[in-house]
Amino acid sequence: MFRTAELGQKLPKKEYKAIEPLLREELLELQQALLAQAKTPVIIVFAGVDGGGKGETVQVLNAWMDARWLINRAYRNPSDDERERPEYWRYWRDLPPRGRIGLFLSSWYSRPVLDRVYGTISVAELDERLDRIVTFENALAEDGALILKFWMHLSKSAQKARFKSLEKDPFLSWQVTEKDWEHWRRYDSFTDAAERTIMRTNTGRAAWNIVEGADPYFRSITVGKIIRDTIRKKLEQLADAEHVKSSTTSSPQPPQSNQHSAIEGDIEKILPSATLLSKLDMSLTLSKPDYKARLKKYQGKLNLLHRRAMAKGISTIVVCEGPDAAGKGGMIRRLIAAIDPHNYQVLPFAAPTDEEQARHYLWRFWRHLSRAGDFTVFDRSWYGRVLVERVEGFASEAEWRRAYAEINDFEEQLIEHGIVLVKLWIHITKEEQLHRFKERENTPHKSWKLTEEDWRNREKWDDYEQAAHDMFQYTSTRYSPWVLVEGNSKYFARVKAVKTMCDYLEQALKRKTDLTKNSSN
Amino acid sequence: MFRTAELGQKLPKKEYKAIEPLLREELLELQQALLAQAKTPVIIVFAGVDGGGKGETVQVLNAWMDARWLINRAYRNPSDDERERPEYWRYWRDLPPRGRIGLFLSSWYSRPVLDRVYGTISVAELDERLDRIVTFENALAEDGALILKFWMHLSKSAQKARFKSLEKDPFLSWQVTEKDWEHWRRYDSFTDAAERTIMRTNTGRAAWNIVEGADPYFRSITVGKIIRDTIRKKLEQLADAEHVKSSTTSSPQPPQSNQHSAIEGDIEKILPSATLLSKLDMSLTLSKPDYKARLKKYQGKLNLLHRRAMAKGISTIVVCEGPDAAGKGGMIRRLIAAIDPHNYQVLPFAAPTDEEQARHYLWRFWRHLSRAGDFTVFDRSWYGRVLVERVEGFASEAEWRRAYAEINDFEEQLIEHGIVLVKLWIHITKEEQLHRFKERENTPHKSWKLTEEDWRNREKWDDYEQAAHDMFQYTSTRYSPWVLVEGNSKYFARVKAVKTMCDYLEQALKRKTDLTKNSSN
Repeated sequence: MFRTAELGQKLPKKEYKAIEPLLREELLELQQALLAQAKTPVIIVFAGVDGGGKGETVQVLNAWMDARWLINRAYRNPSDDERERPEYWRYWRDLPPRGRIGLFLSSWYSRPVLDRVYGTISVAELDERLDRIVTFENALAEDGALILKFWMHLSKSAQKARFKSLEKDPFLSWQVTEKDWEHWRRYDSFTDAAERTIMRTNTGRAAWNIVEGADPYFRSITVGKIIRDTIRKKLEQLADAEHVKSSTTSSPQPPQSNQHSAIEGDIEKILPSATLLSKLDMSLTLSKPDYKARLKKYQGKLNLLHRRAMAKGISTIVVCEGPDAAGKGGMIRRLIAAIDPHNYQVLPFAAPTDEEQARHYLWRFWRHLSRAGDFTVFDRSWYGRVLVERVEGFASEAEWRRAYAEINDFEEQLIEHGIVLVKLWIHITKEEQLHRFKERENTPHKSWKLTEEDWRNREKWDDYEQAAHDMFQYTSTRYSPWVLVEGNSKYFARVKAVKTMCDYLEQALKRKTDLTKNSSN
Repeated sequence: MFRTAELGQKLPKKEYKAIEPLLREELLELQQALLAQAKTPVIIVFAGVDGGGKGETVQVLNAWMDARWLINRAYRNPSDDERERPEYWRYWRDLPPRGRIGLFLSSWYSRPVLDRVYGTISVAELDERLDRIVTFENALAEDGALILKFWMHLSKSAQKARFKSLEKDPFLSWQVTEKDWEHWRRYDSFTDAAERTIMRTNTGRAAWNIVEGADPYFRSITVGKIIRDTIRKKLEQLADAEHVKSSTTSSPQPPQSNQHSAIEGDIEKILPSATLLSKLDMSLTLSKPDYKARLKKYQGKLNLLHRRAMAKGISTIVVCEGPDAAGKGGMIRRLIAAIDPHNYQVLPFAAPTDEEQARHYLWRFWRHLSRAGDFTVFDRSWYGRVLVERVEGFASEAEWRRAYAEINDFEEQLIEHGIVLVKLWIHITKEEQLHRFKERENTPHKSWKLTEEDWRNREKWDDYEQAAHDMFQYTSTRYSPWVLVEGNSKYFARVKAVKTMCDYLEQALKRKTDLTKNSSN
């Protein structure tokens, strides 16, 4: 989940200085439009790791916007006054009225996450607290509130570096306390609690934005831009709804986005937008003899492991996604070559059938879950909802946004049931894809593989890459991570895929054995 | 919660025979319209106590509608096939496609409730299972499904009578098993689990209908009528949405409701619609000397109890609702007469202020929560959302329907915090109200109390009574029940109110003492 915010993204000062006045002007204008319309309160929540720039970002937003109409709230340990009322009293009390923006630091997320990190509450208790949050945010959103949530992230090493550098500065060293270091030592439990928190509260109505917090210029502009886009969209929706109701009555108009297309173009162009995929080492490769030897070795191992898994009733589900011509087919052949044909099934998914179209999009995947012990390969999968359906507009934004949570819930049910779920993304570079397309064109027995659609999809390469990046962000969790396979070398990719399968099955068998041991004690 | 379905409502056979063909025709017609439109799957869930007529109602619906297009599903203990997949696999598998109706018996509600009744799972685990249900139903509803849920209820004695009568019938006695009697013996735990289940899964998108199950004619027509109204509304909404999108393209039209107004009128007229309020014994009264003596006694007791509560930091919140002229003011005066004026506060709620209007409707109540030990009387309250705002149309149907869950959540937070919450409904009959209105008109020093609005509200007496009935149904829970006070005699009402307060405080003090004892052991 957080790897997508550990890419080392930076914005140089010069470019920051170019963007900042433009963004600022737009934010001010939107703030005025919000006030004039007085229909929707805006609630902006900042959470994340210490040193991720939560407080600094609130500072910047106060400088950019008209601070008279901002409500800033940060919560400490409850006062007497607060302790004598239910926990949420203080949050209700501070809600902004319609038309105004509230910025919340150390909000309702702070205590549940920290209580879990320090082991004061169990996972089930954390879930109960997160339920309360969802109920709270839903009630506000259904009443018309716009809720934006930012999770400011730093990697463990970046957090350490940040604390060290603050400590060296005589004017800033007070910011780093023993408590901060204590939190740092618990970084991994913090990540676990954070991941569960984000997953369970990432609703369509109040979605999380995970922001890389290391570079102040990058994070400020990123947050500002998301706030701008979200408020603008909301104002446009409200204006549309107003328009439908009655096209005669006049109401305050939001700034039109087309007025700003030039400026936006600038910001989009200048702001770096690295994706997780752009950071892969695509030069990884393997010689032919090496490939043959290793493939044989891991296929043999996979065969043994799967037979042991069968015996214990452990099912395996492999999800394969990636760009066209990335080599999914060849890779799948190498996987199943290791498995007894009685026990595997490869399910290719293209456009849904009529029967499938007539039901919820997850139905077609649920129906194909196999019995205990089976090894099932999904060649394309439920992730189509947030990839092709998003990019091609087959699913509305509301539909694909809520799909992240639906997919997480679905996979949680698979894993709870004891299924080994492996999600493989086979990647190739845009150049390598072109090379393979041309090769297919020129090879008679391969030309059938290349369709017009492949060329059309290729034109939307950047959109697909962004969709994949967002998918990794919201659905790559500690209990079910995405495995990114560098696929420019088919040899390398196939061996990595088969080896990954071995690792997963080995771990699952070990867990099962441990469980049996414990229960027999 | 279930008292609203223990009113002994019956429909005579003759009247059933008159209604049945009309309702049947309408249901058939709506079923065809659903099929033709093929946009929305309909999922109808039956749950409730054994003997409440779940299976029989499904039988009736199959006879009424075109069974070829109905999908009937009932679940037993999972088969091998089902056990080897995640629990929800079988429910996903059986989902009806768009345009068709699925009737589900012993559905996803069955196991969580029974596991709780038999103590296999804790309350927290029940909550986790209910979360999964809400996630499941939400995903389907957001995808366009119409979900109707019926809880078929019998009182403990009605259930016993039903089993006894079945056992006497040689052809039906097989229906009653030892398991049924075992469930009956656990009736109270069943009610607890059922209440929590309904409260937590009674969402705006998939609301529960609690149906009195004792009389077959009454329950069949009641269920049929709710299905008819809900499907018709959905089809109308879909047609409207279609109409907005493009007024030129033609699409299957749902049967118009005005075509049926005559028939509907018949059904509405014939079907009994007793409310909880209509069953109160409004003749209860108290003589003046009795009144004086008892009032003094309980006021003295209340004073002592409240002082003990103060010392322990226990706050009290009293909610007073009821028709105009029911005597809320006089009753509140008798309550606070017993409390030290430093420690009580009476908060009257009429129309919200500008500041309140600019926020979520619960904000104005949250802000008035007092500090530990205080005694606060809410003269009208958050229940305005589901009473006056519903009846007068100030809140949309979606708004007041979701308010039940919002209010339950709010009150749960109050109670979890240790606040003693007492909800009093002071009732008078329609005749008594008229009598009091006339008296006010003719008494100079009381005439200011009577406004035009009071007369207008009186015209909507039946709507208010129905709204109150629904409110009791969804918000009267075991941990926070409504207390209905028979108010035709002011003397009786005042004494009952003060005595009720004493009972509540006594119990709360006892709980607190028990807790302290346990923790000091």
